[in-house]
Amino acid sequence: MNEKAIGFLDSGVGGLTVVKQAMKQLPNESIYYIGDNARCPYGPRPAEEIVEFTWELVQFLLEKEIKLLVIACNTATAVALDEIRSRISIPVVGVILPGSRAAIKYSTNNRIGVIGTKGTIASNVYEQTLLDKDPTIKVESLSCPKFVPLVESNQINTSIAKKVVYETLEPLAKMGLDTLILGCTHYPLLKHQIQNVMGPQVTLVDSGAEAVSEVSTLLDYYNISADYANRKSRVYKFFTTGSERLFSEIATEWLEMEQIDITQVTV
Amino acid sequence: MNEKAIGFLDSGVGGLTVVKQAMKQLPNESIYYIGDNARCPYGPRPAEEIVEFTWELVQFLLEKEIKLLVIACNTATAVALDEIRSRISIPVVGVILPGSRAAIKYSTNNRIGVIGTKGTIASNVYEQTLLDKDPTIKVESLSCPKFVPLVESNQINTSIAKKVVYETLEPLAKMGLDTLILGCTHYPLLKHQIQNVMGPQVTLVDSGAEAVSEVSTLLDYYNISADYANRKSRVYKFFTTGSERLFSEIATEWLEMEQIDITQVTV
Repeated sequence: MNEKAIGFLDSGVGGLTVVKQAMKQLPNESIYYIGDNARCPYGPRPAEEIVEFTWELVQFLLEKEIKLLVIACNTATAVALDEIRSRISIPVVGVILPGSRAAIKYSTNNRIGVIGTKGTIASNVYEQTLLDKDPTIKVESLSCPKFVPLVESNQINTSIAKKVVYETLEPLAKMGLDTLILGCTHYPLLKHQIQNVMGPQVTLVDSGAEAVSEVSTLLDYYNISADYANRKSRVYKFFTTGSERLFSEIATEWLEMEQIDITQVTV
Repeated sequence: MNEKAIGFLDSGVGGLTVVKQAMKQLPNESIYYIGDNARCPYGPRPAEEIVEFTWELVQFLLEKEIKLLVIACNTATAVALDEIRSRISIPVVGVILPGSRAAIKYSTNNRIGVIGTKGTIASNVYEQTLLDKDPTIKVESLSCPKFVPLVESNQINTSIAKKVVYETLEPLAKMGLDTLILGCTHYPLLKHQIQNVMGPQVTLVDSGAEAVSEVSTLLDYYNISADYANRKSRVYKFFTTGSERLFSEIATEWLEMEQIDITQVTV
């Protein structure tokens, strides 16, 4: 048993979709979250820069003595997971492998779509991971560079969001996919709009939610779960490199909390 | 990527329910299985003896250079998992924590039943694991000592099996449970009879199937999955300390294979 917090990092607010799942699936656990909103989006940046920024977030969380790290950002997972995992001593969970495993489990026609940021799609990591497991899968990948800015500016439930999602995904909706990986942790915030365009027959895979199942497994595997006695004293602490107000606005709504403990920091 | 086999051990044929799930969920992987049929059942034996027998099976599999070990037996998991995990260098998966996690996820009324061998139920390990996670759960535990002999003697689809299952579980069926953990890997072979007695409103948790999800997670986490190229050359090898014929009869039927590669061994 271990009462230290689980650390989550993301380029911005997208990782909150993973945190929401963690709060639900792991109610005994404390959570620290850092969003690099000041430098979001990561998607269009060169890989070296993403690795550098991600390391800064990792250092920030390690100083808070977390027991397990979740890279709740597909772009950072794609370019930095292996290096981070090999260089720090606590368990590290990314969002790409859990999402890929789930997609293969759900798909029955072996036609799987992946949407993500420019960086994630360019890295080809989902396609490679899926094809390593089964090269008979047909993978359709599409980058959706307009989605993250919509979420970060809290324009989720606007007619603009609806229009952007429709125009972006319409070509993908005609391809006979039965499973679509939301390969960016921001995208579950646009889930309804995405499901509407893709149609009800397409299973959306929330890679963040799948990652939380992996977290749950590893907490037990390493015997570092918090037990029920910790539930009352658990803490949820949020940090952002950007605007506290905007982060708080999105987080309270998405996590259905009246207020959150949020601090602006530099990393 | 790693093409070595995953090793499974059980007191008898029960672990085949876990193997069946592994074949389905992890089609690229090779599998070695040892069943200690000559000394089955483990359930009524003293803990020290179960630990001793389990170590003999572990040694047998380690000599075959497996990459991950599954203790596909609840009784052995209950008494030997921690010690084995601490003393061997490859990842070790048991069947109790995955089953407990799944039960908590599925239950909505917080009334969870556990059935298992005398040894598993006496160890109290399921109840303890569930209550550590959430002490508000009401757990009803019941040992079913007659179930393993029914399966090991291949009497699964007989009227005797139906009668024994009914008489054993009838008291449990009236307790308002919404989830029942099959806390013995032999029990999924009696799944239909168990579901009939418990009623359709009760979700049966196959702890072996849940363990395979953990195997899948750990193979990726340690980067030791076999890739698709291995699918054609994968091997399934079975070993038993008991009768090859009886093992083969049950295994071919349960795994829906025409024949299996089975060898009688001493450990």
